[in-house]
Amino acid sequence: MWWEIASTRLGEPGYPLVENRVQSEIMKFACAEAGPISRSKLTGLIGVSRSKVSMEVQQLLEAGLLVEGGLAKSDGGRRSSLLGIPRSAGVIAAVDLGATSIEVALTTLGGEILVCRSEHADIKDGPKPILRRTKEILSEILGEQSVNPQEVLAIGMGVPGPVEQAAGILRSPPIMPGWDRFPIRSAFAGDYAAPVFIDNDVNLMALGEHWGGVGRGVDNMLFVKVGTGIGGGIIADGHLYRGTHGCAGDIGHISVDPEGPICTCGNPGCLEAMAAAPAIVIEAERRAREGLSPVLAEKLAERGELDAMAVGEAAAVGDYEALEIIRGSGRLIGHVIASLVSVLNPSLIVIGGGVAQIGHSFLAEIRSTVYQRSLPLATRNLPIVLSELEDTAGVMGASVMAAECVLTVAE
Amino acid sequence: MWWEIASTRLGEPGYPLVENRVQSEIMKFACAEAGPISRSKLTGLIGVSRSKVSMEVQQLLEAGLLVEGGLAKSDGGRRSSLLGIPRSAGVIAAVDLGATSIEVALTTLGGEILVCRSEHADIKDGPKPILRRTKEILSEILGEQSVNPQEVLAIGMGVPGPVEQAAGILRSPPIMPGWDRFPIRSAFAGDYAAPVFIDNDVNLMALGEHWGGVGRGVDNMLFVKVGTGIGGGIIADGHLYRGTHGCAGDIGHISVDPEGPICTCGNPGCLEAMAAAPAIVIEAERRAREGLSPVLAEKLAERGELDAMAVGEAAAVGDYEALEIIRGSGRLIGHVIASLVSVLNPSLIVIGGGVAQIGHSFLAEIRSTVYQRSLPLATRNLPIVLSELEDTAGVMGASVMAAECVLTVAE
Repeated sequence: MWWEIASTRLGEPGYPLVENRVQSEIMKFACAEAGPISRSKLTGLIGVSRSKVSMEVQQLLEAGLLVEGGLAKSDGGRRSSLLGIPRSAGVIAAVDLGATSIEVALTTLGGEILVCRSEHADIKDGPKPILRRTKEILSEILGEQSVNPQEVLAIGMGVPGPVEQAAGILRSPPIMPGWDRFPIRSAFAGDYAAPVFIDNDVNLMALGEHWGGVGRGVDNMLFVKVGTGIGGGIIADGHLYRGTHGCAGDIGHISVDPEGPICTCGNPGCLEAMAAAPAIVIEAERRAREGLSPVLAEKLAERGELDAMAVGEAAAVGDYEALEIIRGSGRLIGHVIASLVSVLNPSLIVIGGGVAQIGHSFLAEIRSTVYQRSLPLATRNLPIVLSELEDTAGVMGASVMAAECVLTVAE
Repeated sequence: MWWEIASTRLGEPGYPLVENRVQSEIMKFACAEAGPISRSKLTGLIGVSRSKVSMEVQQLLEAGLLVEGGLAKSDGGRRSSLLGIPRSAGVIAAVDLGATSIEVALTTLGGEILVCRSEHADIKDGPKPILRRTKEILSEILGEQSVNPQEVLAIGMGVPGPVEQAAGILRSPPIMPGWDRFPIRSAFAGDYAAPVFIDNDVNLMALGEHWGGVGRGVDNMLFVKVGTGIGGGIIADGHLYRGTHGCAGDIGHISVDPEGPICTCGNPGCLEAMAAAPAIVIEAERRAREGLSPVLAEKLAERGELDAMAVGEAAAVGDYEALEIIRGSGRLIGHVIASLVSVLNPSLIVIGGGVAQIGHSFLAEIRSTVYQRSLPLATRNLPIVLSELEDTAGVMGASVMAAECVLTVAE
């Protein structure tokens, strides 16, 4: 695997963190458990003998990747001790680059967020300044948490574009000039021995929400992010589905109106061009300037420009025009989601991203459109809910992906 | 698993056919191989020791599920013998029920079709007469092939509606009155000890094409059937993706025109209502009656009614109206496939079903619409091709599914 080569090159062997498939499964189940786990439960989950599990657990305890903590409930005999993943096993650096933000977190190997820092940034500034600032933030929070850079086991990163995951590079990202094929991993190579894993930001939000949010335990889930852009992340049969070039779930460029405005991708009437934050703002500013909405006009005069949240605030105080804009966006997104329900037959739809917070009427319109438009069998028990992790879904997913990668042994 | 209970109830233990996970994997790899396979190759594929593989192979040879046949190429030492699945291991009965046809095949456990019989039937006649006739055909071909009913290892069946696979029943199938929740398995219980496995017909066509057709070896594939209805089958990361209620890929009911005709499902402008065979025929008959197309008018006068093939024939002799109708259907289907390309990022799209054979202009129109409408990264190296197995894709898939099921051990 590439990172074995990479880590050897850095003179830092030790990846993957585990030595065989049973150790890998023990660690992954321990990560997935929301708390300490017993040897008996691990034995049942992995399907090898109890003695084999005990032997491999012993090695993981000696390697410091597991720690004994607490006692299992008695089953009549001697109470056995439970196993957990200690903070001292090392940390994961989880990065979520958005179109307009950098978010960096440190988590345990078990996915617990220790610290999370977010700041405004423009991805269009290009890879060098963005990655330099990302490394500065990472350095700062490592210092604050008194974590040595050598304790970083892996770096996981989400980026707002299509990623060729095996190579760790972006491929022709529409909103990220300068990032096409940029060797992101090499930016960290001088300072961290840890391998770097990269994936699309919405894929990672889906993974985060599936792992630690409202999608926990759900096998078939669709995550839809509505922000500056619109994207989808697909959990199919319990796993993140990436597609052939890592661009599965790229729903922002589904055509909703052949006569619609031209999108950044060059095609007319893409969902993203008609329903994401910039489209909401353009429409709100138009209605403000045309005097249709005094509330929006006042906000525009005050601030010089509007954003999606301002439109949400106007709707919240009962402004009809603002409400209409929000509903219009929800309706278009609902139409596309209805198609996706037919295709994917999920059992949960999660709506995240900045615009998801714009107000209840947005979610209500998505729901009513989907329920009206989809076949009854597919919408039977199909909750459509807001993201539970909100801002931290992305870093959570980045952490989960990175942990998964360093705990996987080559077959 | 349900069929262990079912087969015990029938007084016929022996399922699954294998005793442990290694045997299961040996048999599945032997099935997947298009010919005899060596012990060394199996050892490499399964990732356990050579001696373990040899021991389990010995048991499978004794059970008659494998047979020695032919010699492997020499690697310098003694040439080892290859393993195959003999006809004497038993057969799979594979059934494909279409809206207007019954197709029954016998295959080896390894998926080789021994005989295939097809006849016209109307699924709307309801489960009792259709299943009675299915059993008659099965009985006939068993007799012809001198196969004892006890040699039938499993029955696999595809049906044109949404299937709850674990229960083996249809759920609210739109075009199958009387079939809702009908206990299909029980119809075979008196005559066959073999377990019955049921799935949606298009899912099985996708599986068949993936296993033995143009999709062999392709991890992410979309199969689109265009016939009386329109449906999709999804291969994701190498596996058939069924969704939560088994109705993933139900793309016929994606809305393509809010002002369009009302579909059988009750919604307006579904793809199926506007682009499947009945829509093509309605439009052709209209143009024939209105005198727009002398070629179509002549065919209508001759035969009393048109079908999709007649429209194809008219297009083949250069009739503009017929060509327009076919292109219109291809364009609508292409639009939906373009959306699916964004969502699923497949590396192959296969078009099957009766309408797929209507003529080259149909496929050409689908292609040009998809390539024009999708993002470059997703359509880079994305072949859009006709089904290779054509009529036998469904029974091939039914056979593969059934073999997979009887060769799986409970975890």
